[in-house]
Amino acid sequence: MRIVLVGFGVVGQSFVKILLSKSAELYSTFGLNPRVVACVDSDGMAVSPGGLDLGRLLEAKRTKKSVSAYHDKRDYLNTTDLIENTEAEVMIELTPTNLENGEPGISHIVSAMKTKKHVITVNKGPMALAFSSLIELSNYNNVRLAFSGTVGGGTPILEFAKKCLRGDRILSFRGILNGTTNYILSKMEEDEITFQEALADAKQKGYAEASPRLDIEGYDAAAKLVIMANWIMSRKVSIADVTRRGILDVDLNAIRNAHHDGKAIRLIAYCDNDELNVMPLEIKRDDPICVTGTLNAVTFSSEYSGEKTIVGRGAGGLETASAILRDLIEIRDSISIPFDSMA
Amino acid sequence: MRIVLVGFGVVGQSFVKILLSKSAELYSTFGLNPRVVACVDSDGMAVSPGGLDLGRLLEAKRTKKSVSAYHDKRDYLNTTDLIENTEAEVMIELTPTNLENGEPGISHIVSAMKTKKHVITVNKGPMALAFSSLIELSNYNNVRLAFSGTVGGGTPILEFAKKCLRGDRILSFRGILNGTTNYILSKMEEDEITFQEALADAKQKGYAEASPRLDIEGYDAAAKLVIMANWIMSRKVSIADVTRRGILDVDLNAIRNAHHDGKAIRLIAYCDNDELNVMPLEIKRDDPICVTGTLNAVTFSSEYSGEKTIVGRGAGGLETASAILRDLIEIRDSISIPFDSMA
Repeated sequence: MRIVLVGFGVVGQSFVKILLSKSAELYSTFGLNPRVVACVDSDGMAVSPGGLDLGRLLEAKRTKKSVSAYHDKRDYLNTTDLIENTEAEVMIELTPTNLENGEPGISHIVSAMKTKKHVITVNKGPMALAFSSLIELSNYNNVRLAFSGTVGGGTPILEFAKKCLRGDRILSFRGILNGTTNYILSKMEEDEITFQEALADAKQKGYAEASPRLDIEGYDAAAKLVIMANWIMSRKVSIADVTRRGILDVDLNAIRNAHHDGKAIRLIAYCDNDELNVMPLEIKRDDPICVTGTLNAVTFSSEYSGEKTIVGRGAGGLETASAILRDLIEIRDSISIPFDSMA
Repeated sequence: MRIVLVGFGVVGQSFVKILLSKSAELYSTFGLNPRVVACVDSDGMAVSPGGLDLGRLLEAKRTKKSVSAYHDKRDYLNTTDLIENTEAEVMIELTPTNLENGEPGISHIVSAMKTKKHVITVNKGPMALAFSSLIELSNYNNVRLAFSGTVGGGTPILEFAKKCLRGDRILSFRGILNGTTNYILSKMEEDEITFQEALADAKQKGYAEASPRLDIEGYDAAAKLVIMANWIMSRKVSIADVTRRGILDVDLNAIRNAHHDGKAIRLIAYCDNDELNVMPLEIKRDDPICVTGTLNAVTFSSEYSGEKTIVGRGAGGLETASAILRDLIEIRDSISIPFDSMA
């Protein structure tokens, strides 16, 4: 299976490390023999139709900061040119999330699907802004569009909803979809510190970015909520449809008062057939979604089997790379080409 | 799809109610047209090759306490005779769990598989005592043996482990698998009452049976642990291999002391490649498995994607019936007979 990797940050490198360490097992268990035939980062590209040497690729990134150090060829005008003109079965989109216009992720995904490549994306932007049209395009081109890693990092929130509750119907779900804000809110409560102090601590620990607006204003949670709403509840919504309030105005007194009542304040994303919102809410301390630190948690309410909650880390390179691998195995399974010739 | 229902308590009746209310949707969505051709309870049996009238069946059970009131035919010597000599695709085993010798469940399951019927069981006894040999027999006879409802009631704990973590490897898991003991332990903590007081309260609320030995001595949790260990970790173990200690000797002082330290005492089932045990342990209050009331919770630790927890009710008629329906849909999907003729 030939793969084009677009974006080569922590997640991409973790994914390549898994491929390196697991190749025998991937073949024997899943009939999967992945070859990375091209890899693109912000500084350049490495291309080899027979498959890049993954050890050398990681080494080029580590020592020279870019895959362009792998060799000095440059056969393509730009990334979409590379995607469209490279023979491969799968394109994996790992560029940073852009919630303004979804680019360059959307262009990469469209280029791949038009040239009949299956797509795996962990980039939330395209799915949060153009879910329906991208799904439609994948159907039209008869390719798979997989996006497990866009929600929950390595925690299989989307798979759980789709695969583990068949025959039942999910009526609503609510949960914590952003680890940074959850860390800040639980830190404020635990250490009795202000929002600014907790934010500084989160930045220092690497849980918050230098410009944490996407997290603390609730955009990141809203993007994931939209992906879930479309995929799980078949709603046709975009990020603009989310009623959104971040955690900027949550003060320590409110947290203290909630704590006193056996409750905690968390940034809760909620979806049913009508509502779609992200806002700080008081929840009971013994509610299974009342997690601490950077964890994510979602409770699904279903018609017959009641409430079920899934909890796990919502980020992390290796964790998110494991979601890509799950998607890749699914794609392998879905292609009904004989085991040997396809692998 | 013709079904023989063996056992018709709360779960069986809930399942039939779902079939009644959902028949159109089951057909349109899953190609499933279930017909219950025989139903057995402890007082008798109802049989109709063309399919029993499910409304009348429920009515017979409700008003006359037994399905034998459905009609006065009795064509079979006993239940295994009925299972073996009734034409059907699926036998659903719902008799009470017996952890001494697994009967009559094991005999029912063996009879069904020998006569090429797929089996769905929510009866823990057979799977906890004879997991490997029953799986082997199902393979030999080329039929499915499904048992989602044996662990977690309607909470898809087994499915989660098998379907949502592909490509990753589960290294260990630990969790709360028995709702009755969890209710007692969390009630002792919450209300500062003794074990005996909490047990009386659980009985009064219907969470504990009159003879709650299987629950409070940890046998029920051990049975579920064994099923998970065999299925998820490919261990070849039986209930006798579990190091087991119940909650009888957990006293209020120990619970108070744990509470003081930000911890709680819970009956924890644990499995890795070596260990297999059920015992009361102190866990941190902010551990995602530290649930209250009758909830169940399991954390899976996996190689790449870290720890993931699933939480939900571990019992309930409708919830467990939803697990049977999931298994039935899986069986329907696995039989590669054309949609129309099979349905």
